[in-house]
Amino acid sequence: MEERGISKEELKSFLKEQKQKDLTYRKVLSSMCTYPHEIAAYAHNLFLDSNLGDSGLFPGTKAMEDELIRIIGALLGNENAHGYISTGGTESNIQAMRAIRNRKRKEGLQQMNIIVPKTAHFSFDKIEDLLCLEVKKAGLDDELRVDVNLVEELIDDNTISIVGIAGTTEFGQIDPIKELADIANNSDIFLHIDAAFGGFVIPFLDAEYQFDFSLDAVSSISVDPHKMGMSTIPAGCILFRDELYLADLAVDTPYLTTNEQCSLIGTRSGAPVAATYAVLKYLGRDGLRAIVDNCMQLTRMLVHGAKAMGIYPVIEPVMNVVTLRFPDVDRVAKALEARGWRVSTTRAPKALRLVIMPHVTEDTIEMFLNDLENVK
Amino acid sequence: MEERGISKEELKSFLKEQKQKDLTYRKVLSSMCTYPHEIAAYAHNLFLDSNLGDSGLFPGTKAMEDELIRIIGALLGNENAHGYISTGGTESNIQAMRAIRNRKRKEGLQQMNIIVPKTAHFSFDKIEDLLCLEVKKAGLDDELRVDVNLVEELIDDNTISIVGIAGTTEFGQIDPIKELADIANNSDIFLHIDAAFGGFVIPFLDAEYQFDFSLDAVSSISVDPHKMGMSTIPAGCILFRDELYLADLAVDTPYLTTNEQCSLIGTRSGAPVAATYAVLKYLGRDGLRAIVDNCMQLTRMLVHGAKAMGIYPVIEPVMNVVTLRFPDVDRVAKALEARGWRVSTTRAPKALRLVIMPHVTEDTIEMFLNDLENVK
Repeated sequence: MEERGISKEELKSFLKEQKQKDLTYRKVLSSMCTYPHEIAAYAHNLFLDSNLGDSGLFPGTKAMEDELIRIIGALLGNENAHGYISTGGTESNIQAMRAIRNRKRKEGLQQMNIIVPKTAHFSFDKIEDLLCLEVKKAGLDDELRVDVNLVEELIDDNTISIVGIAGTTEFGQIDPIKELADIANNSDIFLHIDAAFGGFVIPFLDAEYQFDFSLDAVSSISVDPHKMGMSTIPAGCILFRDELYLADLAVDTPYLTTNEQCSLIGTRSGAPVAATYAVLKYLGRDGLRAIVDNCMQLTRMLVHGAKAMGIYPVIEPVMNVVTLRFPDVDRVAKALEARGWRVSTTRAPKALRLVIMPHVTEDTIEMFLNDLENVK
Repeated sequence: MEERGISKEELKSFLKEQKQKDLTYRKVLSSMCTYPHEIAAYAHNLFLDSNLGDSGLFPGTKAMEDELIRIIGALLGNENAHGYISTGGTESNIQAMRAIRNRKRKEGLQQMNIIVPKTAHFSFDKIEDLLCLEVKKAGLDDELRVDVNLVEELIDDNTISIVGIAGTTEFGQIDPIKELADIANNSDIFLHIDAAFGGFVIPFLDAEYQFDFSLDAVSSISVDPHKMGMSTIPAGCILFRDELYLADLAVDTPYLTTNEQCSLIGTRSGAPVAATYAVLKYLGRDGLRAIVDNCMQLTRMLVHGAKAMGIYPVIEPVMNVVTLRFPDVDRVAKALEARGWRVSTTRAPKALRLVIMPHVTEDTIEMFLNDLENVK
């Protein structure tokens, strides 16, 4: 660090230059994030100094968090769910697995395992490492949903949780949660649903899916306001049906205004909580539905255009994620990148992956299809 | 959630009402957080949509993070340190302990323990739970620094790390890091320094302390820009001397613009990174020193005033944390709270704890001393 600071003007112009180097989301089709809603940005800014790690100092923000848990719980089938606004899907998944691990550890279990679909997010690799749990990966059916028979076969006496995904990161597929719930119910095993992406999409789709707390066996859900909830980063949400699981996460917090803390991290910004509150209250269900409708319409437009060129999706899109087959996916991805697009690829089966987030417009899809025609 | 959203005007006035319910920091003497610097807030806002969890999309923000690691590393004795901007001290401490645990696990060690001072932050309770490590707590000397003899006695074949604290949360004390470094060196054990609070204070104190990478045996340091670095939340920093420890934290990240990820969480806001960059560049060492000087002057003023009333500190303040002895601490704390102050108490020895952050002014101290005179 220099001894003397630089002027505000010099600094601001440097920051603006750096901002220019960041991509805008205009041609980004690889990310599950998007611009936060304008009202989310407003609220974030207003509560910039709020710290929910010491929530006694910030009762106004804390009240919004409590109300959010009720609102998001109700959206996912249980307005009496318990939880908090986390930093995102990774923290939420960690906390769900940590809660049930701690519960079972108290009961004396030593070697423990969880069963996740092969399509599980890489946060489960972190979980395996972090929490000293074995993560067993169950294979998929033809539609890239987890094969419930394979899940059932993997269960043993040390299995403490099954995980289902409502909106897989790679394919946007929804696991057969009802069937997983039946298994969890019969085996009396904790069932966690990773709806980080799908939680703000599935309730607004035309097709109906059972995936949330309306199924009795669902124990916890992870859902990210900073993905399809149009909030600011970092805004995830972990919800438990049973409040007691929060106690399995708590540590004592001397010298704070509260006595214990359930979050993974300590100091915790209230700004994304205010942002999430604001955007959900502003949009309401109608507003969220309109966003999902628009994304789904563009998703269909993209698939339709691709098919017209003889390019086919791996699965018919269930939500706003499109995966397209090519003989040489990497070549196509590279050629698209050269034209300024940001795309990604899936692993198995290998395909081009495109996420149609709220920043995508009809013009974007047309432009993309044009470029696809030229590089395919 | 309601079907229809509410109007922007209605929402904004609700948010402002909630903001009124949050405390201002004016009479808060219990927190290690403060208002972010105006330039930090500016930068945060400018980079609100940046996501360093997918840093290939945000090369402008990523460049600032890389530069920050160099700047903060240099402040702490090693401009070639490696790390990243975390969500705060808890994540940083977790990651340091996770890295060395993973390293030792690869070498075949099974039951592992770490040795921390009794004054260690409660994040080490989370670490014990999370990482399946035993946390041994070493007792203190008369000045509430860790007793290095007790640390040495606790070391066994399964000890993978010693932790020293540079700025304890409760007393603002600095452990004898040089002596801990000698022990770590002799025993070839990883040494982590928790300087979450002290990292932006100690380099600017009149007295000199050896506590950072200038000691060869120091392996990693945790330091929080969102505490005395005047940045926005969430901004922590974890630094390793040896880059290879980052590899011990990495998981593969298919479908992102980068191939692997070392952070604990996934999606990760770039806004506090820009904020930290901005405030450190704007203030420079001179600016940070001025802030610390001011806090220390007010700290001395407070202690001086207390002594004049016959109230004595547990230790002479080393940094901007004051702990005062009373026959009945809880009664005094309660009486102060009734007068609008937010104070906290320490555990052993029991005392009134006051953190003199940059939001505290001379007027605040005078007002506080007045109230103290009345309630003591």
